[in-house]
Amino acid sequence: MEGDHEVISARRLESFSDGVMAVIITLMAFELRPPGGVAWTAIEHRLPNLLVYVLSFTAIAIYWVNHHHLLRATTSISGAVMWANLVLLFWLSLVPFATQWVADAYRATAPAVAYGLVAVGSAVAYFVLGRTVLRANHHDRVLARALAVDVKGALSVVIYLVGIALAFVTPYLMYACAAAVSAMWIVPDRRLTGRRARG
Amino acid sequence: MEGDHEVISARRLESFSDGVMAVIITLMAFELRPPGGVAWTAIEHRLPNLLVYVLSFTAIAIYWVNHHHLLRATTSISGAVMWANLVLLFWLSLVPFATQWVADAYRATAPAVAYGLVAVGSAVAYFVLGRTVLRANHHDRVLARALAVDVKGALSVVIYLVGIALAFVTPYLMYACAAAVSAMWIVPDRRLTGRRARG
Amino acid sequence: MEGDHEVISARRLESFSDGVMAVIITLMAFELRPPGGVAWTAIEHRLPNLLVYVLSFTAIAIYWVNHHHLLRATTSISGAVMWANLVLLFWLSLVPFATQWVADAYRATAPAVAYGLVAVGSAVAYFVLGRTVLRANHHDRVLARALAVDVKGALSVVIYLVGIALAFVTPYLMYACAAAVSAMWIVPDRRLTGRRARG
Amino acid sequence: MEGDHEVISARRLESFSDGVMAVIITLMAFELRPPGGVAWTAIEHRLPNLLVYVLSFTAIAIYWVNHHHLLRATTSISGAVMWANLVLLFWLSLVPFATQWVADAYRATAPAVAYGLVAVGSAVAYFVLGRTVLRANHHDRVLARALAVDVKGALSVVIYLVGIALAFVTPYLMYACAAAVSAMWIVPDRRLTGRRARG
Repeated sequence: MEGDHEVISARRLESFSDGVMAVIITLMAFELRPPGGVAWTAIEHRLPNLLVYVLSFTAIAIYWVNHHHLLRATTSISGAVMWANLVLLFWLSLVPFATQWVADAYRATAPAVAYGLVAVGSAVAYFVLGRTVLRANHHDRVLARALAVDVKGALSVVIYLVGIALAFVTPYLMYACAAAVSAMWIVPDRRLTGRRARG
Repeated sequence: MEGDHEVISARRLESFSDGVMAVIITLMAFELRPPGGVAWTAIEHRLPNLLVYVLSFTAIAIYWVNHHHLLRATTSISGAVMWANLVLLFWLSLVPFATQWVADAYRATAPAVAYGLVAVGSAVAYFVLGRTVLRANHHDRVLARALAVDVKGALSVVIYLVGIALAFVTPYLMYACAAAVSAMWIVPDRRLTGRRARG
Repeated sequence: MEGDHEVISARRLESFSDGVMAVIITLMAFELRPPGGVAWTAIEHRLPNLLVYVLSFTAIAIYWVNHHHLLRATTSISGAVMWANLVLLFWLSLVPFATQWVADAYRATAPAVAYGLVAVGSAVAYFVLGRTVLRANHHDRVLARALAVDVKGALSVVIYLVGIALAFVTPYLMYACAAAVSAMWIVPDRRLTGRRARG
Repeated sequence: MEGDHEVISARRLESFSDGVMAVIITLMAFELRPPGGVAWTAIEHRLPNLLVYVLSFTAIAIYWVNHHHLLRATTSISGAVMWANLVLLFWLSLVPFATQWVADAYRATAPAVAYGLVAVGSAVAYFVLGRTVLRANHHDRVLARALAVDVKGALSVVIYLVGIALAFVTPYLMYACAAAVSAMWIVPDRRLTGRRARG
């Protein structure tokens, strides 16, 4: 009975997180307001907007995929896991705000730094969530995955921090760092999960 | 068969409530519009906006966690529970409105009182939901939990009402009361559920 | 296997509908923009806005509760049920638009008629959905429920149509008709489901 | 155990996609802003807006129904399926943007072409998702369905491309092509699933 409740609990955690991430993605896309004109030059002005949307969409997508893998291997949801998850959702909910500011003023330092801070906050929150799940689940599969996440998670935080520092040189280096973190997560993940699906 | 239907019913109640709460959180964050400028002073003007968002996010998060605990122990969903839940969602759906008004004019009395009224409405609705669940479920586990919620729920209503009265002195006392209620719910909940997860 | 697939199918239909209805409710509440001032007179100007929100929230809540009861007794989901459900969601998705227009100009005839047309469209769509579910499920429990819904559903359409006609006298009669339909659905439903939960 | 995890996984993929599609639909409807006046001529100005909403709603509804059929027959979710699904959601999340631009300037070529490009992107992404699911599942039922989807999917891409070319003559031909694709998907699908539900 208790075990059954825990499974429902893990799934409600997932479904709530999915809801928040689904709304984040769609609201961000929604902010891609129609260009003020009807000429092709009008859409050119929207291009940076579109690019930063792609960057943020990719980041949220990566969090969704990894969140999914993390909770799939989870059997026990403690109160600490629920709160760590809510802190992650808090940081992710700031992504549209940061995205919009960068879209409005992508050549300035302040929006790039704000984007980097939200990225660091999210990465640290995901790192903490991973460790909290690890503490609540004591079997090998979670352990192995959590360790792998630990290394990449810590590296993400470092790259984002470097990006924030470099934003004071030029904001484009911050965006490059964010893109690098996304590439680091997508590439091996695809290989790993592909192999598991077959094995 | 009926029992199975009830479980599905409880989960649909949860998933609908999750949807509403997920959208509330994300829409509120979305209202954190990008600052009008690119300087750091621009984000300073957004700071009260950010703080009231943290306050409201925390309140919704607490409702989500407690709603989750309440329904986890629930096996029977009556029509009264469905309607009590909808009344709670109605009040919670007003939180972004109140949050936005406070963010726009946090030094004035009227927005602080409106925020307090929405908080009181939500707290009373949650209290009523708890009692309605209790009436539909007659076993000890729910009973024990519901009683604990009763005491804290009643206390929340009192603190919010005091906050509304104090808002006529200065609105900041209203915000302090709202923060106090959140602290009251987060601190023991974390301990309680942590212990349960291990025991 | 097939039966299991059908259950998942019914639940996905529910979860998608829940998502749409959850977003509708929250977006409508979100349109309750903060008053332009900080005085209490500012919120007075928002009062009609709040009242029409209560009217629309109640209508969506009733659809959610009845949709829930209808699908709870459903075991077979045909393609026709999926499309009938999508047509219902289409009409419901127009509710925020109609609500907003009424909130902006509640003294005029045109918004009241538009609100009535969306209400009629939704009521007809729900009626058709009920009949489609009935055709796909041939056992007594669904039949009995569907017949009850038929009578109330047909009556709702008639009352809304009367309301649209009366809107040309004064729009307030349209709002009264909409409120009457909501009252007709809430009152017996609460009694009925309360009795079932105990019996 | 693994099999059970896969089923949960498929359902989380569904529920996340449902969330995104539900928000897309509701946000698009939400953009049907109330007319600036109270006369009936005011709603006439909104008519193109309403028509393009119907077009986009239908397209999203078709993706939802087919997505549902595709995943219903799926037992194995590989990492590639997850990413192919996310790419589809990315393109669908651009639909409100394209819809809004067309609604604002439906007589111009640029918005019609942008609408067509988003439609092509979505159709190609769905085609790729179908093939990815096919590769991860090796039983006949999925195979048969995926092949049927392949033909219609490829045809959809061709019609949309023709529509984009014709938009340079007049944008209305683009909208006609989009409507033709929707008709192609709705008509047989209804028949097919109706037959299966009975058989």
